[in-house]
This record gives sequence, C-alpha cells and structure tokens, in this order.
Amino acid sequence: MRDQFLDSQVATNLIALGDPVLYEVHEMSRPEVAGELVQGISIVHPGRVGAEYFMTKGHFHTVLATGELYMCIQGQGMMVMETPDGDWAVEALRPGRVLYVPPGWAHRSVNTGASLDLVTVFAYPGNAGHDYGTIDRQGFRKIVVDRGGAPEVVDNPRWSAPKPGG
Amino acid sequence: MRDQFLDSQVATNLIALGDPVLYEVHEMSRPEVAGELVQGISIVHPGRVGAEYFMTKGHFHTVLATGELYMCIQGQGMMVMETPDGDWAVEALRPGRVLYVPPGWAHRSVNTGASLDLVTVFAYPGNAGHDYGTIDRQGFRKIVVDRGGAPEVVDNPRWSAPKPGG
Repeated sequence: MRDQFLDSQVATNLIALGDPVLYEVHEMSRPEVAGELVQGISIVHPGRVGAEYFMTKGHFHTVLATGELYMCIQGQGMMVMETPDGDWAVEALRPGRVLYVPPGWAHRSVNTGASLDLVTVFAYPGNAGHDYGTIDRQGFRKIVVDRGGAPEVVDNPRWSAPKPGG
Repeated sequence: MRDQFLDSQVATNLIALGDPVLYEVHEMSRPEVAGELVQGISIVHPGRVGAEYFMTKGHFHTVLATGELYMCIQGQGMMVMETPDGDWAVEALRPGRVLYVPPGWAHRSVNTGASLDLVTVFAYPGNAGHDYGTIDRQGFRKIVVDRGGAPEVVDNPRWSAPKPGG
C-alpha cells in the first residue's frame, strides 16, 4: 500500500514503526460462478498517513461487467470510484446507507472517521474476481484528505493515466 | 395470497374486511444481466391470518442457479426456504443478521414479531428473474405459526408435491 499514499515518506516511516493493519476483509467463500454471491464484511481502521485517511487498496473486478453492493453498518467514510473511461464519483458511507457500485467501476473505501472502524457488508457476483494490479499501477484519480478536521476530495497528483492497451 | 395461508376462511374474511397489505417490496431497477445486482428493501408488516404470521408470497428464481442476499435491519422473523429436491431450511431474521439464500432455494420471509415491521435489504443477480408460479401451485413444505405467543415451524398440510416434469 505504501505507494498508494500521497505521502510515501510518512508511509515508509509507519511501516518501519510496525506496519499497522489498515483494513481487514472477511468473506464467505462461494463457488466462483455468476449466479453465486460472495458476501463478507470489510473493516477499515481509523487513522491517517499524513493528511490521507486509511483506505483499502481498491480494485476493479476481473470480469469488469460485475457490480458490488455495500451496506455501511458502522463508522463514517467515503467510497471512491472510477471507470477506465475517466468517470469518477465519491459517495458518503454512513450507518444504514446502501451503496451500489455499478459494473465497470473500480472502488476503494476510505475511513474518514476520527476513532471508529468503518464497517461495511458487501456482496458481489461469484465470478467477479479481483483486479488489484490496475489500481496498483495507476492509483485512483481522486484521493480523500483531511483539511482542518474535515474530509476533502482532491486530485491525486500521483495518478497515472491508463496506458493504451494496458 | 389467500390460498397460501392455512386458514383460507380467515384469509377470505380479512380480504372482505379491506384486504390488508401484507408486505411491500421497493427495489432499484437494473439491467437484467448476470453481472448486475438488483437491490432493494422488503417490508413485511406484523399480523396473522389465524395462527399463521404475515409473510411474503415467496419465489424461486427463474434462473434457478442464482442466489440472494438478505440483511435484516429491523424486526423479528424467519426465512423459510426449500429446494425442488425436497431439502428445506428455516433461518431466523433479526437486526444485523446477514442471510445468504444459495442458488436453487425458494425463499419466503415471515414476520414473527408482535408489532414491528420486518425489514430486510436484499440483493440478487440482475438476470435471476422471479418464478412465483411454482410456490403458488405447491406452497412451501413448512409454515410458521404462532403457538402460545412463540413461532413454531410445522408441516404445511396444504403443500402439494411437485409434479414430475412440472
């Protein structure tokens, strides 16, 4: 995750100081076929790397045309999303909110809360698969940073445009 | 729904007295393809028809090999499930419980609470479709009735075995 954060020096220092766990995902394993739904729980711990909140790695689905449902049950956060074509969206996560990430959208959850875990229940088609590599190379267009105690969505200066054919 | 209840005379009387709404389903419409997830909210009102609790009609999916996820957010109830091969299961619904109905299982939710709506958030693959006809003809093998103030799962005397080839 180090290179996903804007302030990679702070990230490097954090790793040296014990490499804190940013988030956990627990899921029910199901057959990897289209009619199944894989379900689980995602827990993003509170914290920051510099001004940037703790977040998940984020991913596209390997089968791009598959959606994912999230329901927030604790905490405060944001879902950062984007498509390969350049669309982006950021939606609030708060208890009771159900958020649908439509097919084709990469997504990452960010814990903007001061002290609580951000906890979501998720479900996605059994055949979806995870493509972490694309985000690992490109990053997301937008990041969420703390500005005077409130979250703000800003351009990601480390974002690199998709390579043609890549 | 009249013929789904054990006591069809009471059901007939209830209908004559104003035909109460047993449940409501509100869902987000999505393209009817496999990678999409249709999501929504199901509200089963409290009440009984004779000893039998208010419940949903219940259905198989038209594409049988598709699952469905439920998360209970209010109330107390049960999910009654069965397969075409004769397996059945009944699982409790209570706030915070996530229940996965695997592919192939018909399902019906039953509100066993005294006064609260039973509210669940659900999601299923966009291509699943609904087959209400099979349950309409056969009923479920099990029904949930009130016995001295507590729910009890009993055989459904009105259940009719699937017709071969039907």
